[in-house]
Amino acid sequence: MQYYAPSFLRAIEELHKLPGIGPKSAEKLSSYLLKMDFDSFQQFIDALEQMRQRVRRCKRCYNLSEEEYCPVCQDPTRNQHQICIVEESRDLISIEKTGVYRGLYHVLQGVLRPVEGINADKIRIRELLHRLKQEPVEEIIMATNLTYDGELTALYIAREIKAFPIKITRIASGLPMGSDLEFADQLTIKSAFKGRESMELEE
Amino acid sequence: MQYYAPSFLRAIEELHKLPGIGPKSAEKLSSYLLKMDFDSFQQFIDALEQMRQRVRRCKRCYNLSEEEYCPVCQDPTRNQHQICIVEESRDLISIEKTGVYRGLYHVLQGVLRPVEGINADKIRIRELLHRLKQEPVEEIIMATNLTYDGELTALYIAREIKAFPIKITRIASGLPMGSDLEFADQLTIKSAFKGRESMELEE
Repeated sequence: MQYYAPSFLRAIEELHKLPGIGPKSAEKLSSYLLKMDFDSFQQFIDALEQMRQRVRRCKRCYNLSEEEYCPVCQDPTRNQHQICIVEESRDLISIEKTGVYRGLYHVLQGVLRPVEGINADKIRIRELLHRLKQEPVEEIIMATNLTYDGELTALYIAREIKAFPIKITRIASGLPMGSDLEFADQLTIKSAFKGRESMELEE
Repeated sequence: MQYYAPSFLRAIEELHKLPGIGPKSAEKLSSYLLKMDFDSFQQFIDALEQMRQRVRRCKRCYNLSEEEYCPVCQDPTRNQHQICIVEESRDLISIEKTGVYRGLYHVLQGVLRPVEGINADKIRIRELLHRLKQEPVEEIIMATNLTYDGELTALYIAREIKAFPIKITRIASGLPMGSDLEFADQLTIKSAFKGRESMELEE
């Protein structure tokens, strides 16, 4: 690689550190950033630096926010008796986009991964317990991912809060809308059967 | 998207402008850049800014360089009688990695695309003609990509320099039509160099 300009090579190396960016992509991105007009490049750098400067975590639910409390926590029309637990802010956004939920959230900022040393102290479980002592919560909806880690985390938290007089629910697992039974995995089919509900028939 | 912190959203938008970065990747990258420790983030930004500040074009061959002349042009052991014409610096790097070629280069910084208005004035053809008047060149090796645009560009340049007493060759065998030099394996590039042939011009 001796024929690369050293600073060009360094930019490639830094871009290659980002998740999902292979060496070829890193090279393409470096070339692109080098060719960009100066204003666009400055705008790009500014956006990243301002994000770092401005974005922090909501003091209550740990959602991404530029203010002390995030827009959900600041909204008095949200149901203050429900807390939906998600792994990351992007999961909160996915739920918000559907409009199906009008309660509050608690963003764990991760998921339990005992093998990797990510235990309960490393995610926002202590902060959740603290909220439950302070807030008039009636229902906790576990919306961690339907993965091994997500299930483990939901189960762990459910056990931790068993002592509180709070209803604990888990988002349903089953076949995605529009999908074929033929292509579903066995675990999903099993869980779709276990979670079956009465069909409401119009009179 | 009202529940995103505005500066987080802006960072996503800027990342999404980069080639090959979709909206989901942009979101993942933003999250990653936000979570990075401060030093790593600063190192990342510095690398990009320094690349922009330091990297320029070699005054002779237009390869990427941090100095007035690139390492190839500065190397007195390179064969001064051969110029290999490539579209981009990354093609030069691909050739250098094989070690098959010991002459000089000329980086066009693009390829003719008449439909998109990229004509001969937009790439470094004039500068090549200028070099041919100054330098003791005996052979021009056309190593533009084996794509439609690359072929067109090679042919155009071959016609432009027909008047010079210079042998004109084209890398030929080994590279399948429609492929890019950048992605070829080293053996293929070597065989393309060894199999180069004189370009035949219709009268």
